[in-house]
Amino acid sequence: MNVQSDTSFDDESTVRRTRPTTGYALSLVIAGPGIDAAQLVAAIADIGAEVRSSETVEGGLEALVACSGTAQQAEVLNVVEQLDGVDSVSSSDTTFDLHVDGKIVVSPRTALLGPDELAMAYTPGVGRVSTHIAEEPSAVWRFTGRSNAVAVLSNGTAVLGLGDIGPEAAMPVMEGKAVLFKQFAGVDAYPVCVDAPTVDDVVAVGAAIAPTFGGINLEDIKAPECFEIEERLQEMLDIPIFHDDQHGTAIVVVAALLNAAKVIGRPISELSVTIVGTGAAGVACAHLLAEIGIGDIIGVDSRGILNSSREGLHPSKQWFVDNGNKNDRSGGAREAIEGADVLIGLSGPGIIERDWVSSMADGAVVFALANPVPEIMPEFMPDNVAVVATGRSDYPNQINNVLAFPGVFRGLLDVRATNASMGVKRAAAEALAAMVTEPTAERVLPGAFEDGVADIVARSVSEQARHEGLAREIV
Amino acid sequence: MNVQSDTSFDDESTVRRTRPTTGYALSLVIAGPGIDAAQLVAAIADIGAEVRSSETVEGGLEALVACSGTAQQAEVLNVVEQLDGVDSVSSSDTTFDLHVDGKIVVSPRTALLGPDELAMAYTPGVGRVSTHIAEEPSAVWRFTGRSNAVAVLSNGTAVLGLGDIGPEAAMPVMEGKAVLFKQFAGVDAYPVCVDAPTVDDVVAVGAAIAPTFGGINLEDIKAPECFEIEERLQEMLDIPIFHDDQHGTAIVVVAALLNAAKVIGRPISELSVTIVGTGAAGVACAHLLAEIGIGDIIGVDSRGILNSSREGLHPSKQWFVDNGNKNDRSGGAREAIEGADVLIGLSGPGIIERDWVSSMADGAVVFALANPVPEIMPEFMPDNVAVVATGRSDYPNQINNVLAFPGVFRGLLDVRATNASMGVKRAAAEALAAMVTEPTAERVLPGAFEDGVADIVARSVSEQARHEGLAREIV
Repeated sequence: MNVQSDTSFDDESTVRRTRPTTGYALSLVIAGPGIDAAQLVAAIADIGAEVRSSETVEGGLEALVACSGTAQQAEVLNVVEQLDGVDSVSSSDTTFDLHVDGKIVVSPRTALLGPDELAMAYTPGVGRVSTHIAEEPSAVWRFTGRSNAVAVLSNGTAVLGLGDIGPEAAMPVMEGKAVLFKQFAGVDAYPVCVDAPTVDDVVAVGAAIAPTFGGINLEDIKAPECFEIEERLQEMLDIPIFHDDQHGTAIVVVAALLNAAKVIGRPISELSVTIVGTGAAGVACAHLLAEIGIGDIIGVDSRGILNSSREGLHPSKQWFVDNGNKNDRSGGAREAIEGADVLIGLSGPGIIERDWVSSMADGAVVFALANPVPEIMPEFMPDNVAVVATGRSDYPNQINNVLAFPGVFRGLLDVRATNASMGVKRAAAEALAAMVTEPTAERVLPGAFEDGVADIVARSVSEQARHEGLAREIV
Repeated sequence: MNVQSDTSFDDESTVRRTRPTTGYALSLVIAGPGIDAAQLVAAIADIGAEVRSSETVEGGLEALVACSGTAQQAEVLNVVEQLDGVDSVSSSDTTFDLHVDGKIVVSPRTALLGPDELAMAYTPGVGRVSTHIAEEPSAVWRFTGRSNAVAVLSNGTAVLGLGDIGPEAAMPVMEGKAVLFKQFAGVDAYPVCVDAPTVDDVVAVGAAIAPTFGGINLEDIKAPECFEIEERLQEMLDIPIFHDDQHGTAIVVVAALLNAAKVIGRPISELSVTIVGTGAAGVACAHLLAEIGIGDIIGVDSRGILNSSREGLHPSKQWFVDNGNKNDRSGGAREAIEGADVLIGLSGPGIIERDWVSSMADGAVVFALANPVPEIMPEFMPDNVAVVATGRSDYPNQINNVLAFPGVFRGLLDVRATNASMGVKRAAAEALAAMVTEPTAERVLPGAFEDGVADIVARSVSEQARHEGLAREIV
């Protein structure tokens, strides 16, 4: 999930406190005579952090400690320094360690051993391959890496929940995305972080770089600009354009909801859904929910429910007025949630109260997707809630985009698709849902590291793309 | 070298006939009882092709045969089919085989084994790295791959000697470049082939993608647009912009000439140089030759010598009038070559006559760099010529850009340089020349596959960049 909420909530309330994660881990080297690992584990558990591994080494102990945030990292160091027998503690932040020099590399598929290979891979041989492509353009899909290459294109205007922090600061995220693309689906993903603040700028660069890629994954571009960028690029280009913050999220949300509906025994067409947060992800979820036939969809932004009294709405928000909110309800998030069967939070940390959720229908479904701190923590749910999902890996039912985008692009690339249609997105969601044969309240989705997720999504996407005539013929 | 000349010359003259190369190799599977490898080698040699390897397999023979061109490939198949004992021959073109699915891959530096690694490499951990970069912009050089990443940016308007064949057809070349970058200098090079036909288009996309890269290698962009593109991008951006067709060629040419001058025992400042072909490479050679203090430089384009009578010249050509051709000579290539100490051909195959070269000074130096068929073949040189270089790997003294660009970018990236200055280029040329401690007529340059070439160039480039204040401070 890409809706990253403010971690300053950490110390405000025990309920909302984030759990320890390796995202905030410290690697410790503790020197001193006879330090006891059990003592270390206990002392660290006392302050809410967690020893993930420890090893006795000459002269001391090495340990990896997961923390809930930077404040707890400091607390851990304090506690460890005061343990019996500790002479000194040195630490490094494993997340920063892992990012040194970046997370991806570009490598040759085969080394050039000498002039013979050089003559084939480069001049004069390469000139013939170029000539062939100039004469037979579709050969680019066969004799270059294009058919396996995706641009992960971001202008850094909406990076995670951090806002407009610019293309350089977006780089670690896009590189992370490239890692996931390769690991889960074998896709060669190129981070392309661009200094392109406006719609026109991003469209220009997206259209320009298209010949290199088999698809473009737009990423962390703010709404509402992202809608126009995607639409214009898809109109101009004959490769799929897929804004993951929108459609990756939507696919996983819809997959989870398809299974949650089974758990609560309700047909999709009867369910009313309230979406709190109508940014990129909220809008895309609404569209895909409508595509699968959800009964009613109410959108809520920071000014309240989107209804007929709201004027001058951006088309992305007007959609909720024209296509959802059948009874033209008004008010704020509280009013929008009342009586709803499904609540999808794509907004900010802790903004939803427990008694609002109590006012939902019996057997309610709550997806609280702000990350890492959800709109309302799972342990805080009232009894009428039957299924809960979050963006977090430490609770059941993680809504994680990595369940979708690697398989979606694998499937699109496999048939050299020209477009990522609504049907393709629906097919991906349905394939993902079908992976869980017997959904339960604790399991409406497969896990991110389960085998075969990307393959199954890819097959379904390829088939749908072929069915819709989006597969490219290669001569 | 990127000046690729027309291979249709193949059959016009024995002298001009290109030699067999693996760039036109066939991989043969020959079935039949008792085929004799010696017979095969002889029959193939008879028609001018060359068996590079052969192996007896069950039921026949497998062989790799280097050819001079596609016509000879067909001839080889004909000859082999008619050999004694041959039942059938199947063949594939190894150059095309090698290009299937492209030549590079993008890979993670470390696999994500599970949720713990995911939390560090991606959310929530990555958010902290992004935040850190947003607060301290120079951290992008440490915590992302930017400091080792180069964009190989081409709009496909001047691909090798093939002309404006477009960005898709340019892809195999840019991928090849990426292979060379990695193999020779460990640089992560991203092919970026863009649909950007005008100067403004390329400048816009170059400026936009800059945040992702530590440098931009412009490639195969036609003159004179390439001059303005490079200049404007370097003005706008604080990373080095280096048009390899210009400066890579210039660096290697100047290195070769520094050593050729030693071979003929003449000081650089006394030498007069005639450059036939004033496109991208010719112009850059002239500038770098002027930088090292060459006595006189005469430029010749398709309309003749660049002199004061030529009007409306592009600034890149006007340079030759303002800074060279001291005696304001006129005429064509023939007149320009007469009496010259050095001839640098950067034009087309076979356009220079033997008796023109005869009219050069004694101890003349001829760099005939059209590729694969030079302006005049080395075996065709008159006696007054002391040193010959070509763009080909099958003659001594190959002027090959791969001697320069990997080391140049390695050196620039190592200090996070902000600019590829003239001083940097000169330093690269001098380092390259100095690698040959005792230059001879047959060896004015190191070979492309000699150890340490890129390292030595890189060190010299880094040092010069630091010296000129072009190295970036990282907090």
